[in-house]
Amino acid sequence: MSEYRAPLRDMRFAMDEILDYPSHYASLPNGEESSPEMVDAIMDEAAKFAESVIAPLNSVGDEEGCQWNDGKVTTPTGFKDAYQQFVDNGWGGLLQKPEWGGQGLPISLNSIVYEMLSTANHAWSMYASLSWGAISTIEAHASEALQQLYIPNMVAGAWSGTMCLTEANSGSDLGLLKTKASPNEDGTYSISGSKIFISSGDHDFTENIIHIVLARLPDAPEGVRGISLFVVPKVQVNADGSLGEGNNVSCGSIEHKMGINGNATCVINFDGAKGHLIAQPHKGLRAMFTFINESRLGVAQQGHAHIEGSYQTAVAYSRDRLQMRAPVPQNPEKPADPIIVHADVRRMLFAQKVFAEGGRLLNYYCAQLVDIVHANQDAAVVENAETQLALLIPVAKGFLTEASLEATSNGIQVLGGHGYISEWGQEQHYRDARITAIYEGTNGIQGLDLLGRKMLGSGGKVMVPFMQEVLGFCQANSTSVYAQATEKAFNNWVALVGKLGAMAAKDPNEVNAAAYDHLMFAGYTVLAYFWAKSAVVAEQALADGSNETEFYQAKIETARFYFARILPRTDSLAAVMASGSGNLMDLSAEAF
Amino acid sequence: MSEYRAPLRDMRFAMDEILDYPSHYASLPNGEESSPEMVDAIMDEAAKFAESVIAPLNSVGDEEGCQWNDGKVTTPTGFKDAYQQFVDNGWGGLLQKPEWGGQGLPISLNSIVYEMLSTANHAWSMYASLSWGAISTIEAHASEALQQLYIPNMVAGAWSGTMCLTEANSGSDLGLLKTKASPNEDGTYSISGSKIFISSGDHDFTENIIHIVLARLPDAPEGVRGISLFVVPKVQVNADGSLGEGNNVSCGSIEHKMGINGNATCVINFDGAKGHLIAQPHKGLRAMFTFINESRLGVAQQGHAHIEGSYQTAVAYSRDRLQMRAPVPQNPEKPADPIIVHADVRRMLFAQKVFAEGGRLLNYYCAQLVDIVHANQDAAVVENAETQLALLIPVAKGFLTEASLEATSNGIQVLGGHGYISEWGQEQHYRDARITAIYEGTNGIQGLDLLGRKMLGSGGKVMVPFMQEVLGFCQANSTSVYAQATEKAFNNWVALVGKLGAMAAKDPNEVNAAAYDHLMFAGYTVLAYFWAKSAVVAEQALADGSNETEFYQAKIETARFYFARILPRTDSLAAVMASGSGNLMDLSAEAF
Repeated sequence: MSEYRAPLRDMRFAMDEILDYPSHYASLPNGEESSPEMVDAIMDEAAKFAESVIAPLNSVGDEEGCQWNDGKVTTPTGFKDAYQQFVDNGWGGLLQKPEWGGQGLPISLNSIVYEMLSTANHAWSMYASLSWGAISTIEAHASEALQQLYIPNMVAGAWSGTMCLTEANSGSDLGLLKTKASPNEDGTYSISGSKIFISSGDHDFTENIIHIVLARLPDAPEGVRGISLFVVPKVQVNADGSLGEGNNVSCGSIEHKMGINGNATCVINFDGAKGHLIAQPHKGLRAMFTFINESRLGVAQQGHAHIEGSYQTAVAYSRDRLQMRAPVPQNPEKPADPIIVHADVRRMLFAQKVFAEGGRLLNYYCAQLVDIVHANQDAAVVENAETQLALLIPVAKGFLTEASLEATSNGIQVLGGHGYISEWGQEQHYRDARITAIYEGTNGIQGLDLLGRKMLGSGGKVMVPFMQEVLGFCQANSTSVYAQATEKAFNNWVALVGKLGAMAAKDPNEVNAAAYDHLMFAGYTVLAYFWAKSAVVAEQALADGSNETEFYQAKIETARFYFARILPRTDSLAAVMASGSGNLMDLSAEAF
Repeated sequence: MSEYRAPLRDMRFAMDEILDYPSHYASLPNGEESSPEMVDAIMDEAAKFAESVIAPLNSVGDEEGCQWNDGKVTTPTGFKDAYQQFVDNGWGGLLQKPEWGGQGLPISLNSIVYEMLSTANHAWSMYASLSWGAISTIEAHASEALQQLYIPNMVAGAWSGTMCLTEANSGSDLGLLKTKASPNEDGTYSISGSKIFISSGDHDFTENIIHIVLARLPDAPEGVRGISLFVVPKVQVNADGSLGEGNNVSCGSIEHKMGINGNATCVINFDGAKGHLIAQPHKGLRAMFTFINESRLGVAQQGHAHIEGSYQTAVAYSRDRLQMRAPVPQNPEKPADPIIVHADVRRMLFAQKVFAEGGRLLNYYCAQLVDIVHANQDAAVVENAETQLALLIPVAKGFLTEASLEATSNGIQVLGGHGYISEWGQEQHYRDARITAIYEGTNGIQGLDLLGRKMLGSGGKVMVPFMQEVLGFCQANSTSVYAQATEKAFNNWVALVGKLGAMAAKDPNEVNAAAYDHLMFAGYTVLAYFWAKSAVVAEQALADGSNETEFYQAKIETARFYFARILPRTDSLAAVMASGSGNLMDLSAEAF
């Protein structure tokens, strides 16, 4: 009953009117490849593909799930065919270098395509995105020979990739992992150990799967400083690139889980599997984290995807569903008013809308910074972008995935009992979204990364470049009530971080105690900037005589909602953090 | 992997130390039946039954679900046997009158037994609770002859019951329902129409199912003032109580839904089914709502049940799971510390704990008031109890079910990826809990009922009896910081309601705009009272030399957490409500 329609008008608002993607693309080294015409064509085609090929498989994937039999995973009906179309149409290589057979387009543009795919079908989209992560890792850390051996087939979609980090006793704490790598005489390594929760870990799409694996060398120190990085194919690859013999890599089982059922979450057993060391010995974790910004941004997009998808269905339903009367009946010729007239329904829809549209701006802003980090030649510009990403990636990942829990819950509630049954797809959004707060670093880890490592670790300096951006906007638009409120919100944030730093200097538990609440505080504050900017741009468009009155008026009203009904949540969060860690830490573990 | 253990110590704390159930029971007309010894025996046996018979079927019910074939519903493996044990052991008649074959024990005691059953297995427990609702309705509104015909077999568990309200186009707005009832010459009625979302609507437990059905008589006015109440058996019942012929009542299908899969959610078709009118013509809705307090309290308990169940698993897991180090390592001989040492994990556990234990107090307090309404002979005492229930039932139903969404989400997050897979049962709590915010009046409806009908409708008078109770406690314990904070919180609530009343007088949309936030504000404030009282009682117990130091210290520390980290949420809620309805209402429906 639910249908995905790519919100192209709003995506263009973000790209063209708020973030000036056209100038940004023109400034990239191969900017002529991402001309406005090319971008338009890609977005239109991606929308069609996501809407007509991928979205219809979303409920199929959820209902059928993946099947595991005798070590082999079968994906849901239609998934493999859709993957073949994806590959045939060149989507898998959009962002890859031309020398590997890709199109060399900006990461941000791929990211926007990914938004459409993941909103259409989160589970399916993960087969593609895990491959991108594996390709990036090989490209950055493997020898030229290994790159030549693996990457072209991966870019062509003939082979796919995974990231194998987690083990049964090693989740958030990767320092505890036990998978071993023993050197062979031929320069390869024999990998032995069992990895769990491996997304896209096995499937029937491709003839080979290239696993990126964290393991320990025999002489490895304990903890995170003794982890190395390996590339381990499911089927061995001959020197000429043809497939060789099997490789003692097997899928031991798949998880029965709450959501993303169309994606196989696998136990992958390595039993003396042959692999190659990439990156420096014992420096594997640092190497793996090279692409952490991209991978966490991908999860932020998945959270955002469910907000958007759930919102689309909720709005459509609330326009059609007739129940009860507004104080002044809006639909007197019918037995009741459409529920969208009720303030409480609007409260829920608006909360979805501010996160869908504001979250999109945050993600696109980050994706633009990722482009700069990869392609800009000016070291100072790159450093500025890297610093902004250091701040904003944990916010995007942590905050938007938390927002997705609230927004998808609203999406159920707007539909009442109809939201709880499978028919409308709202409950699938709620279930699928829930993983985004967990994987790729739980939101607790994001909170610690943001407050401990980034904020207090830099003495607050990590905030500076983004603050300059924001305060520059606020000062240039000082008559806007939203710009004024944004400036105040950011100043409150700075004051809060100073206070938390002082508290943490006395008691290190304060960092962990405040980490989650600070993450949410940061998210609400960052989104204020994007909503203020949206309102200012919309007001200007109307002042300039735009005939898209409804579109721009909606931006202004949605900003108004955000500042009046969402941003005040920071008040309570600040009060909670100020209460200190004692109320969390003083109870003995036994007494819980 | 998860096991339910009835928290008897905490239940006794609520009953004996906070709410003085022993005196309350002694004051009831048949108080000798619920002596402390009898209550102890019932609780111990109920705990054993819930833990050993019902809880093990929880994941079975979720995995198998109910099956519908050719109009017949088959329940999951073991459900029917467990029901037979339940009936054989007399649990179904615990609260029913002795003249019907019941034990005549207090409603509150049945409610406490129901807490255990629903925490063990929400889906299974609904087969019993729907019957209780049907019995109560027949008892209150049907003729003596119909009572004799139906109730004894229902109390004995040979027949079960349902409540058939919702239709495809009539959910929150029951005034739109279309099911028709035509009078027959023999004084019966022919009922025709289709009901949806009928919990326990069909199953294989009993030879007959007695449906309570809302329908319209031929001369019925439109809307809610034209709804009548009927009792319609699945199989007709002869005058001697034996089963007669079938009755054109069929189960058209069951829903595929997100949770409570062990309970059949049915489409029930009435195709000229023979039934009896009960209650006055056109006054059916009012009659149906006689038991609204009990039925909504039952849903509050279901929400609470998931908080408790999810908390038990989260605490157990967080004591065992070793990941990362506290600032000062707690477990130096092991590779990592148990995660319960981390402040962020404690933040999540504490939030579960305050709602589990505080929510229990609210529910038991309400159940005690229900006893009084049913059994007390003093009209003034009954009126006081009714007024308190008018205030507290929407809070218990609405707030505790909302809290269950947060708490069960925390219960997943504490387990990380292990929370997302089926094995630990945490994701089932998250899915099952979600329905409680929807059915028996959505929480939007609860919010409207509380703020519009109760608070503003009474000019605030509905608050008075409960306020007297609370302020009496606060003044008697004026040295307690928590009593002081509670008094302030309640005064803030009174001020808020006054403000909202003034706003609503100018714009009726303000009620709907503030309803949900006010409901949450009310919930946080009400729970403050119960946590203040818990802290005061625990401090006194320690001062009196109790050797249960850990238990009482935990109460004090949990109260401290509540006031420091949960109650401040009311600050943001108040700011949001003060912003007025314009930011919700001014955007056109088309512009969303």
